[in-house]
Amino acid sequence: MFKNVPALQKLIRHLQYVPYLASKNLYRVASHFLSSDEKDVKELCNALLEVKSKVKKCKTCFNWTEENDECYICRSHSRNKNIICVVERWHDLLAIERGEYFSGVYHVLGGSLCPLEGVGPDDLNIEALLKRVKSNNLSSNNLICCEEIILATNPTPEGEATASFIASRLESMGCRDIKVSRLASGVPIGSSLEYMDKVTIHKAITGRQPF
Amino acid sequence: MFKNVPALQKLIRHLQYVPYLASKNLYRVASHFLSSDEKDVKELCNALLEVKSKVKKCKTCFNWTEENDECYICRSHSRNKNIICVVERWHDLLAIERGEYFSGVYHVLGGSLCPLEGVGPDDLNIEALLKRVKSNNLSSNNLICCEEIILATNPTPEGEATASFIASRLESMGCRDIKVSRLASGVPIGSSLEYMDKVTIHKAITGRQPF
Repeated sequence: MFKNVPALQKLIRHLQYVPYLASKNLYRVASHFLSSDEKDVKELCNALLEVKSKVKKCKTCFNWTEENDECYICRSHSRNKNIICVVERWHDLLAIERGEYFSGVYHVLGGSLCPLEGVGPDDLNIEALLKRVKSNNLSSNNLICCEEIILATNPTPEGEATASFIASRLESMGCRDIKVSRLASGVPIGSSLEYMDKVTIHKAITGRQPF
Repeated sequence: MFKNVPALQKLIRHLQYVPYLASKNLYRVASHFLSSDEKDVKELCNALLEVKSKVKKCKTCFNWTEENDECYICRSHSRNKNIICVVERWHDLLAIERGEYFSGVYHVLGGSLCPLEGVGPDDLNIEALLKRVKSNNLSSNNLICCEEIILATNPTPEGEATASFIASRLESMGCRDIKVSRLASGVPIGSSLEYMDKVTIHKAITGRQPF
């Protein structure tokens, strides 16, 4: 179908690696680029290359950062460095930040444990988290230490397994004073009980709160 | 949320213009580019820029073409130039080509009539189609002329309106010997009657074929 249009064929091949573009939409997206101004396409390319050259991972929490080695959350003085919220990915961090109510800091794991896809503990930033907790406790001479670790991995089998693994590693490290918590599971606000699966309803009932 | 990460903010802004990337996925796609090899991102950019500089519209049917002024379908000797299939967009052409049973040529309109979005007849390649039909009939000294025009616009209100408009223009041009046809509407193969809307079932019944 692409006879004699090798450049287009090449673009489609590259677009296949972009996540969240269903195969049906590849042709539409390619069409979009073909029809749009050359200036806009160049600007997108520049933005892509700029991001690759400038943006790096925060050395403490693995959030994205640009000018400094540490991200704006880790550098902020108004954040409580002793409450660490552990999330799977950057967009999970964004989802929590959107609410503007969490005043602790984060730790981005870079994914969740998934043996079937070959993702083991060494592929995630788990060791860095343990080291961070340890150094937090040492540097503070036990006056201020890491207070709480919120395991905010997703409520999926992989996320639960990752949370369990981290909790057991923290326990074996002997961090008994640190509170380890997990996000509440239950019925999302604005939803209807009718459409909820039974596991969610079970979680909502067992985790019920005094009114 | 993007404090101190202007490059990332810029990329997200540019990605917003890419169709079929839901706003929720923008961050995931940006994450994908940040995590992938710089080489791969550069290759994608090169593919984008190459496509912009090399690929153009076929001067006859408005399909995409690279080296020649005419696309491979218009240049092919095995195609029947007297059967023109009129489609809205390039991906509609691809959908028909995938079947490898259509031996005629195409005409890509570039969209459908949509007054609400400000798309009128002048924004589509309708005049070019009429000119093409006329010149086909003149050049052939009435020995071979345009035999059939298949109006293969989508069965949506806009597509139907576009088909009607083209049909009336062809009639007013005095092309009475040309057969003008429309794609059959009905129940798609592999589907279940249960899930079909009533208009589709109505079309399937009124358009029923002898067994």
